[in-house]
Order: sequence, then C-alpha cells, then structure tokens
Amino acid sequence: MDKTKNKIDLTLSCPRPLEPGDRVLLAHGGGGKLMNSLIETVFRPAFSNPILNQNHDSSVMTVNGVRLAFTTDSYVVHPPFFPGGDIGDLAVNGTVNDLSMSGSRPLYLSAGFILEEGFPMESLKRVVQSMSRAAAVAKVQFVTGDTKVVDKGKGDGIFINTAGIGVIEHALTIGPKSVQPGDVLLVNGDLGRHGIAVMAVREGLEFQTTIESDTAPLSTLVQDLLSNGIRAHCLRDLTRGGLASALNEIAESARVTIAIDESQIPVREDVRGACEILGFDPLYVANEGRLVAFVDKDDAERALALMNQNPHGAGSAVIGSVTKETGPLVTMKNRIGVSRIVDMLSGEQLPRIC
Amino acid sequence: MDKTKNKIDLTLSCPRPLEPGDRVLLAHGGGGKLMNSLIETVFRPAFSNPILNQNHDSSVMTVNGVRLAFTTDSYVVHPPFFPGGDIGDLAVNGTVNDLSMSGSRPLYLSAGFILEEGFPMESLKRVVQSMSRAAAVAKVQFVTGDTKVVDKGKGDGIFINTAGIGVIEHALTIGPKSVQPGDVLLVNGDLGRHGIAVMAVREGLEFQTTIESDTAPLSTLVQDLLSNGIRAHCLRDLTRGGLASALNEIAESARVTIAIDESQIPVREDVRGACEILGFDPLYVANEGRLVAFVDKDDAERALALMNQNPHGAGSAVIGSVTKETGPLVTMKNRIGVSRIVDMLSGEQLPRIC
Repeated sequence: MDKTKNKIDLTLSCPRPLEPGDRVLLAHGGGGKLMNSLIETVFRPAFSNPILNQNHDSSVMTVNGVRLAFTTDSYVVHPPFFPGGDIGDLAVNGTVNDLSMSGSRPLYLSAGFILEEGFPMESLKRVVQSMSRAAAVAKVQFVTGDTKVVDKGKGDGIFINTAGIGVIEHALTIGPKSVQPGDVLLVNGDLGRHGIAVMAVREGLEFQTTIESDTAPLSTLVQDLLSNGIRAHCLRDLTRGGLASALNEIAESARVTIAIDESQIPVREDVRGACEILGFDPLYVANEGRLVAFVDKDDAERALALMNQNPHGAGSAVIGSVTKETGPLVTMKNRIGVSRIVDMLSGEQLPRIC
Repeated sequence: MDKTKNKIDLTLSCPRPLEPGDRVLLAHGGGGKLMNSLIETVFRPAFSNPILNQNHDSSVMTVNGVRLAFTTDSYVVHPPFFPGGDIGDLAVNGTVNDLSMSGSRPLYLSAGFILEEGFPMESLKRVVQSMSRAAAVAKVQFVTGDTKVVDKGKGDGIFINTAGIGVIEHALTIGPKSVQPGDVLLVNGDLGRHGIAVMAVREGLEFQTTIESDTAPLSTLVQDLLSNGIRAHCLRDLTRGGLASALNEIAESARVTIAIDESQIPVREDVRGACEILGFDPLYVANEGRLVAFVDKDDAERALALMNQNPHGAGSAVIGSVTKETGPLVTMKNRIGVSRIVDMLSGEQLPRIC
C-alpha cells in the first residue's frame, strides 16, 4: 500500500475547519468563527486597550466625568432595498441598537457614504430620507458626515458607515462580564425575519406571505427596562450570526454555560418554512430589531411584562438561563427534551445581510 | 440659414458647468462645487440641525456639561500604499486632524473596514499596524470597530471609515463663523505633496526625487497655539480640493473676502514641476498634514513662531488676510502683482486621493 496515498487519505478523512489563510474571505465578515479569528489575530494585537477589550456592542468610556458609549458599523447589505426596510434605516437602527446595548441613551450619529459612480440619485435620496425618518423615530441627530465616490465597478452602489455617541445615565455595568449564574435570558420577539427578508429578495424567492425585516430601534425598550430598575447584566442585539453567535460570544467572555429551550424561542411559521427551504437554521439568521437580555432572575418576570408593553417588544419571551456549570458553553434542549451543543457559526451563512 | 442649427450652435458655444444629474458622478466626491451641491440638495434637507449646520470639519456639542467634538471620514485612496504613507495612517491622521480643527484634543477613534474578498491578509496587517502606530503618535485609542467583507468585484481592496471623539477644553468658538476682517492666514508648510505623491504612484510617473505624502497629525500643533493663548478664529485642514476650496468654503460661511499672496504660499519646486506636467494647480491639490489658521492679527507673529517650532510646522508661513470688503470672495495676488479670483473647484481634479 502506498504510504503517501494513505497519508493523504487520512488528511482528507478528517476535515478541519477552514483556517484564516493569506486572503480575506467572505466569511471573515460573517459574524462567526473566521471573523473572530480575524479580530483576535489581526485587530486585537494592533489595537488592544482596556476600552476596546470590553468586547461589547458599544464601548464605554468616561470623558471629564461623563460616561459615554461609542460604536460604529458599516452597512453593505445587498440589495439595499428589501421588504420592511432599506440600507438607510438599517444604518440608523443598527447603530442606535449597538449604543442601546450598553444601556446608553443614543444622542448623535455620523454618516459616511461610499457611493459607486453611476448610483441613481433618486435611490440616494430615498436612502437619505429613510435615514432621516429613522433618526427622528430613534430621537438621534446626524451631526457630521462624509461622502466618497469610487469609480464604477469598484464599489456596489452604496455602502454606509454610521458611528454613534450615547450617554450613560445609570450606574450599571452592562456587558458580558457582568453575566452571572442564574441570570434569565429574554428575547423581544420572533427571530430570523431580517435575514430571510433580504435573502428572499436577493434570490428572487416568493413565499405565500411577504416576510418583512424586523429592523427597529431598541432604545426605548432598553430605557423602559433601566428606568424601572431592572438589573440588566448584559444586552446584545442579534445581528450577524444571529442568537447562536451572540450567546457563544457572551458565554466565551463570561466563562459561563448558557442553556436555552428551543420550544420557547419564537420563530414565525413562514420564517421557519423559508429557513427549511433555504437550508438555514433560524438561530444563526441575522435580526436587526431583536436583542437578548440577561437579567437578574428576580427581575425576569417584571422585565418580560415591561418588554411586552413596548411597541418593539410584543412577542417577548423567556428563552433560557445561565446555569451553575462553568463554561464557555451554549446548550439547547430541543422539542423532545434532548440537549445539544449550540456552536458558533463556522463559515458564512448569509453574506452581506447588513 | 437653418435656424435650428443656429440654435444648437449657440447652446454649444456657451458651455455651462456640469449640473448634478440623475446619477452619482466621481466629482460628487471631489470636494468641489458638485459635492457642495450634493450636500445642499440631498443631505442638508434631510439632516439639517444646528450642530450639523456649523459646517465645520468636526461638529461640536455639549453632553452633560462636557464639550465634545465628533467627526467622520471614509478613506478610499487608490492605491492604498503610496510614498510617505498608506490608507491606514491617512485614516488616523485625517480624523485626528478634523477633530483638531475645532480645537479639541482627540481621544477616541472607531474603525470600520470594508474589505473586498481576496484582499491579501498581509496587506491588511500592514494597514492595521500603520493605523496602530499613527494612533500612538497622535495619542488616540481605537475603542470600537467593525469589519464587513464584500464579494470580489464589488469593492476595491480596502475602504476604511474612522470616526473620532475629542474633548474641548478651551472657551473659544473655532469655526468659519468666527472669522473677522483683519484676521491673518497662516499655513503650516508646503502645499500639494499628498496629492502628487498618490498621483505619481497611481500613474506610474517617475520624478527626479520621490515626492512623499505630507500625512501627519496636527493635534500637537493646534494645542501649541491654543495653550499659548493664540486667538484662533478658524482652523481648516486642506484635504480634498486643497487650499482654494477650503478658503472658498470659509469665505462663503463667514461672508468675507479673503486675499492671499501667491509669492508667500510655500510649494516645493518638485511639486510645482509635477503639477505643471500633470496640469494641476497646487492650490487645489489635496494635503493630509496641512492646515490654514485664521488668527487675530495681533497674535499672528507669535502664532507663526509657535507653528515653526512644532515638528509639523517647520516651513509655516503667513499667506494672506481677511479684508474689510464684504464677501464671499477669495482673491490672489500673483507674482507680478495682479489679483485674480480664486474659484472653487468645479469638477474633479484628483479622484480617490483620500
């Protein structure tokens, strides 16, 4: 028997997860393992500092006695217009939500446009008006901006970056490191609609009902919790990589085990059906108006009631808790009572979803 | 004689400046008239508010008693590596400089990367390390970031957005509206090097000497002026559109006439030569480490001495003053003593220069 051949077969029979190679891959932007690897091997060694290392949706820092939150996101969603929203309101809500996840009150946004030569002026106006409306709803102001134009074929219509500043007016430290055993997990509604809405229009799929993106600002929902004294330990919006990736990141930072219950996780029937057709798991699909809240167990019932009263929290549910076991681990009990590990997304499920 | 023909000829004989049409043009990002038109017709109607309407490099706002500056810029420079710098230090220095132009002390930056699938990982590392070094020099920290990857052919290697927060610790209102008749104009060194350095490598031109970009952080230079009590009325960094566009914007906001003297404007001989070969006017060429300062006439001499002592101010010069005439107008006396109007850039001189 040829030993070389044997060796190759052994290698082939044991597939390893894709390693970050010498080129950037689509999956490096997907919110999963490869993106984490890029952050840990390229960005963190260069930029590491205590504020960045909070590992949260927005960073918190104190300037002359005032606690501020600061965050940024670029939006490259394709196509830029989809059922329930467009790249404009996404760019507002996404950054407002990242600011809200530190419990801050969002105040000011910046807007950076990278336009491709030839992009229709009418589409730009539509996006800008959508940003303006979303900013008014979220009570934030655009105070600074920038526009660059790149040659035709060197961009894709429109990319938008927004950064945001919020002010923190409570004494809590909200973030992964505040998560404790016993904490109860709540989500503010059904999962997976944003990702499926974008995929459906991108792939030209038609479902019996139109699935609309869940894009929404979560600032008032968070303020409702905090102003009523809910001890929120961690808040995270469920964008790229969905619920599963968010929980894995938090379990990793907090070194805890998180146990969720599939039967309690709200997913609409049409979204579940679309996921089956497309081969997606709704736990990994991006949302743009959904969060998971880790709250003190004694506050969970009151938190659920408050969330359900908010316009962006109808359909809120308790989906699990932090166990006493050490971690990091995320487990899910399925509908027949069997528990399995919920891993982080390995590659790219839905490119350019936000 | 065919009347129709006559009509057409008349139209053709009177060329009008290009109007913003139904598509985005490269010149909409060029820092000149078309970009101003885009801002005034699309962005301002949607986003108008008193803070945005300060029309300055960074916006200034007060949060719980603390005066903050906030700004953003996207960087799409092509190619990303050029003599004297790269897109990484540009993305740090550009935003640090915008913050400095309000007299703020730059503190925190965000970084948003839009990478094209297939971009070499080594190039990304080089850019990130360059950002890290530039941030250390400018004494700012990256505290939040985001990475998106777009499909091959839908981007151009690497685009970077940075936003920044600075704190204002003086009582001055620095901006176009504080400019007064009698103010003296100073620049901190020779003009046009950044634009020519990028163009030379892009076009494969070879000059007798290598022209290096002037990219540099201007925060210490501005702090040197302010901490020594210089009454700086307006500061502006001379990026896209160069000195001529910056002065036109300020003259427009302040409704003043600005008179500059060509013989006093420092331009290196090799840069002047390259401009002649390429058909550029150095007054319109982008810089990335140069500012114009409008200072109280009684402080001008001291300001010049302070600027010359700073490592980024060797070669500073007084180049003109604000006259008693109403504006808006920018005039320049040439080397033989004749004055002419210096207009804003109409189209696009140097696309993707920053």
